[in-house]
Amino acid sequence: MYKPRAWIINIGNELLIGRIINTNASWIARELTLRGVDVKRIVVVGDDIAEIVGVLRDAIGNADIVVTTGGLGPTDDDKTMEAVAVAVNRPLTLNPDAYRMVREFYESQGYSLTHERLKMALLPAGAKALPNPVGAAPGAYLVEKGTHIFVLPGVPREMEAMFKYVLEKLKPLLPQLCVVEKGILITGMPESSLAPLLKKASRECLDCYVKSHPKGHELEKPVVEVKVLASAEECSKAEAKAEKVLEKLRSLLEGANVKVEEIAH
Amino acid sequence: MYKPRAWIINIGNELLIGRIINTNASWIARELTLRGVDVKRIVVVGDDIAEIVGVLRDAIGNADIVVTTGGLGPTDDDKTMEAVAVAVNRPLTLNPDAYRMVREFYESQGYSLTHERLKMALLPAGAKALPNPVGAAPGAYLVEKGTHIFVLPGVPREMEAMFKYVLEKLKPLLPQLCVVEKGILITGMPESSLAPLLKKASRECLDCYVKSHPKGHELEKPVVEVKVLASAEECSKAEAKAEKVLEKLRSLLEGANVKVEEIAH
Repeated sequence: MYKPRAWIINIGNELLIGRIINTNASWIARELTLRGVDVKRIVVVGDDIAEIVGVLRDAIGNADIVVTTGGLGPTDDDKTMEAVAVAVNRPLTLNPDAYRMVREFYESQGYSLTHERLKMALLPAGAKALPNPVGAAPGAYLVEKGTHIFVLPGVPREMEAMFKYVLEKLKPLLPQLCVVEKGILITGMPESSLAPLLKKASRECLDCYVKSHPKGHELEKPVVEVKVLASAEECSKAEAKAEKVLEKLRSLLEGANVKVEEIAH
Repeated sequence: MYKPRAWIINIGNELLIGRIINTNASWIARELTLRGVDVKRIVVVGDDIAEIVGVLRDAIGNADIVVTTGGLGPTDDDKTMEAVAVAVNRPLTLNPDAYRMVREFYESQGYSLTHERLKMALLPAGAKALPNPVGAAPGAYLVEKGTHIFVLPGVPREMEAMFKYVLEKLKPLLPQLCVVEKGILITGMPESSLAPLLKKASRECLDCYVKSHPKGHELEKPVVEVKVLASAEECSKAEAKAEKVLEKLRSLLEGANVKVEEIAH
């Protein structure tokens, strides 16, 4: 079953100094995963051109889809567009669409176009500008060596509002897959005792992703969440694949002194 | 001013499918940053040996300190120790200290040592076992080509409880630096208008890290947080460096119709 591979690159010193929790990464990862994309890597780098270029080039060589966040603002340390241009060996140019977006954004409120504001209309040559419905900085979309690159802002509200354009552009690439996640919560058995049962149950669906997450203390208060992520062309089939693993696990747990609960989604 | 460089590597499919927000990364990043470490990169990879080995080797070539989280549990998809062993070309061996820790953990509660439990006592040859005061799986500490590698569990409560051992081992490596962060909140000026003033103010401290974070809407409700991270051998000097940048910024903002507030820490 073909799944496009994605890398998520989050750019910003504020992430590296731990001032901000990277909620953008998990939000994007979830959106892509549930649409049949295989997120292979998430990388956080600072606002440093060499660092950004290095990871972008790695990503272009390894992923079908790259989504970056951050570094699109008007300040000097917002360097992402410049780094993208370097990474794909293209000049940074004034993009006519991005220029119109930035100009309209500011002029409609009576602000003139300064050097700092114009900076946000500079995109790598050949990139398409992505509108920002809730902020100033447009995003960018470009294809390099077959890799689809989306450059989005770091402010979560703006990034999320622009993600519809990502999905629009990706539509022809996305597999016709329904991805579902089902889980159970098992109370009363240490994860280490559950492990061999889980291994057996996992064999019921070789292309499912089965994982246990300890929630309590291994021995004193063992609570383990088991999640199964399954995909198929039809949702009912994906459901059935996940259910098969959980059913097997339930049957293996029969007789053990444990409580098994469904996890609601 | 010498600052050791660190990479944080978070391992787990659950992070790549967006089921979990990576709070471990920001927690560790904060701890290291405030002790004078320069966190250069955060990478999230799945429970896949080739992926983990790839990023570990990158890290060993680029960082003085590597902290990994996740993949130490008893289940089959917990592959981190094996990957670390491969990355440093050492065999995975039963570590006597780790064996004692795991055995004591289970036997004290009347549990026997199964294959899955013994797995948690397998460490790369030459690694030191790090005790886990709140869980089953020990961590590991090893030095490879001058890079200090710490392998910690992914459960935040366990990882945080074990971080004291990381700091203990790192002590000789940490610079005698006091790192402080100071910030102001500016209401009433778009980030794009603030940008040139910020650039000027930043020149007051070339080794400070100065960053603006838009909090509201660029034009309709402009609120920008400016943070300055400064370090020096003495805290008072670090404070003074940060304050110099903010003072300059305040003076440049004089006369503008803005509200400037201190940010408490």
